[in-house]
Amino acid sequence: MLSLNNQQFSFQVISNKGKPRAGILKTPHGDVQTPVFMPVGTQATVKAITPAQLDEIGVTILLSNTYHLYLRPGADIISELGGLHHFMHWDKAILTDSGGFQVFSLGETRKINNDGVTFKSHLDGSLHHFTPELAIQVQEKLGADIIMTFDECPDPHDLKYNMDALKRTHLWAERCLKAKTRTDQALFGIIQGGIFPDLREQSAEFITSLNFPGYAIGGLSVGETKSEMLAILDGVDGWLPADKPRYLMGVGTPQDLIEAVRRGIDMFDCVLPTRLARHQAAQTFFGRINLMNAVHAHDPNPIDISCQCYTCQHFSRAYLRHLIVAKEMLAATLISIHNIFTLVELMRRIRRSILENCFDQYAFEMTKLMEKPAD
Amino acid sequence: MLSLNNQQFSFQVISNKGKPRAGILKTPHGDVQTPVFMPVGTQATVKAITPAQLDEIGVTILLSNTYHLYLRPGADIISELGGLHHFMHWDKAILTDSGGFQVFSLGETRKINNDGVTFKSHLDGSLHHFTPELAIQVQEKLGADIIMTFDECPDPHDLKYNMDALKRTHLWAERCLKAKTRTDQALFGIIQGGIFPDLREQSAEFITSLNFPGYAIGGLSVGETKSEMLAILDGVDGWLPADKPRYLMGVGTPQDLIEAVRRGIDMFDCVLPTRLARHQAAQTFFGRINLMNAVHAHDPNPIDISCQCYTCQHFSRAYLRHLIVAKEMLAATLISIHNIFTLVELMRRIRRSILENCFDQYAFEMTKLMEKPAD
Repeated sequence: MLSLNNQQFSFQVISNKGKPRAGILKTPHGDVQTPVFMPVGTQATVKAITPAQLDEIGVTILLSNTYHLYLRPGADIISELGGLHHFMHWDKAILTDSGGFQVFSLGETRKINNDGVTFKSHLDGSLHHFTPELAIQVQEKLGADIIMTFDECPDPHDLKYNMDALKRTHLWAERCLKAKTRTDQALFGIIQGGIFPDLREQSAEFITSLNFPGYAIGGLSVGETKSEMLAILDGVDGWLPADKPRYLMGVGTPQDLIEAVRRGIDMFDCVLPTRLARHQAAQTFFGRINLMNAVHAHDPNPIDISCQCYTCQHFSRAYLRHLIVAKEMLAATLISIHNIFTLVELMRRIRRSILENCFDQYAFEMTKLMEKPAD
Repeated sequence: MLSLNNQQFSFQVISNKGKPRAGILKTPHGDVQTPVFMPVGTQATVKAITPAQLDEIGVTILLSNTYHLYLRPGADIISELGGLHHFMHWDKAILTDSGGFQVFSLGETRKINNDGVTFKSHLDGSLHHFTPELAIQVQEKLGADIIMTFDECPDPHDLKYNMDALKRTHLWAERCLKAKTRTDQALFGIIQGGIFPDLREQSAEFITSLNFPGYAIGGLSVGETKSEMLAILDGVDGWLPADKPRYLMGVGTPQDLIEAVRRGIDMFDCVLPTRLARHQAAQTFFGRINLMNAVHAHDPNPIDISCQCYTCQHFSRAYLRHLIVAKEMLAATLISIHNIFTLVELMRRIRRSILENCFDQYAFEMTKLMEKPAD
């Protein structure tokens, strides 16, 4: 196991009165203020928007998917072309997942054994075998700042399966660590264990014993109830070391972000803001708005009159609805800009509230606001 | 007939050694250096790109389509929302066509008499009746800087039809002038007459007698051969007054732009750069490139290594091909930016060559370059 170059990567908690934390994550591609929301660029692009637009929104780190890039265009091509940062022209931080979540989402088409997972490509049905070693090798070729261990992501309610899977996830975490060769990437370990606090605690104990520079909570936001998710998150602050970043994978509603920060989480990713945008829904601090709704046809107001994003500064709901009805691509672009901005801005405000020691009050007010139906 | 406010709109030819002209068109929304290429924003958006991106490209005027906006979202909505500039957040110049070309493109579903044209909407089959008066009324509600007379656009090879249609086009031009009420919009007259020089000359004589602030050549680039088009353009400089802008409608290949400027044309519009982009084709000074081609899969070079556009400054052919193969919307955005930039840049270079009195040499070199197959 090679150690990480600590001059290139570090994490510092600068405020934590109670569980919510404000921190700074240093990476070879810039500093990330936490808590942070990472937009998802599955296929080496955040759908419908340019890196310049992401930069203008204030995004400092984004996530890309190893499974998708491994299949297309292939990690070798991206490596040849200078790595993922250069390939997609994003010179701030990138995190890649390990492919685990996607591979396990393929359901019946995949076969698991202790060595790894054999699965069929969703693109052309071709057979592939993913192992912890390959997941690391691919992620080293992609060259993200933060990479993830290859884990197994079971049905969160299936105790027996979670017990079995956890053994593999732990074994694979050790193999990922051994397989790692680059010192300029931070490999985060992933805690699994479904909705079972005992398993989660056991997983945290094992994974943290491997001394990763950061820890992720995997296997949530995959079908469990909100209260089941929160019950697990309640334990996180006790199970994980205070001086390492904590990343809750796949979580992205404003309410969930607030509740997870309340419980000591620092990092998040979710496809929600861009997926909603392609389905005509704008995310605001006062709920979701379906811009397709005829009520917006004559509305000269922006999505959110107090929002500082490019879309809200310049375009009315009536114009956005027109673009949607006319099936213009610009609709997805402008609504994606707004939706990502909203989550990035939410995290900025949450961070400020932590620094100003008023997170609870801010969270209370935001939660009240978001409970009101928007239209 | 109301006169135009000449403080808001004027045209000055600043160089014309021979037929090619460099000029400045002043509009209420800024100066336009001619010759100029106008990208098309059919439905109040240039497909797949934001106004900020258009501005960065250096676009100073764009075209939008009255027919489409009349049907959806409707001119009243756009007027209510402050006019087309405000609606689509474009504060530089806009030209709207009259809807004539689109209505006549509908073919068998439309009925023409001297009063106007009855047609079925391509969206929902609803019946509409367009007249010169309505075309002006709609364009006044949209509020573009330059608006167009309502003309009839026949098969360019049909002499009999062209003779009949020309009478209506001339009658309608007079009715458009009478119907005009705003003084802050320049109404351009349109010359028709198919591929028949006699009819074209006759049309030019009549239309220029009405003293419009600018003149368009309609009914070309609609099925005639290149030499038939050029034969008509050969006459333009003699038929049209030197002190008014001349606009060749619907023309947009680099070769055609060069040949038309050579014959004294100042303004152009075409959907080609954005349509090509949505079909994976990049327009360059050395021909068209199909970016879907597998030869680009590993290519670290941009579309055009000498191009200064956002796309060529930051993205490789390999990345663009990946976006295309992965069906990512960003492909259309990035290639559209490049394609529009190329035509805008071509016009900037053409203009410079006119000012430096070396248009013929520039045109010769560009034409040679463009004849070479690009890939």
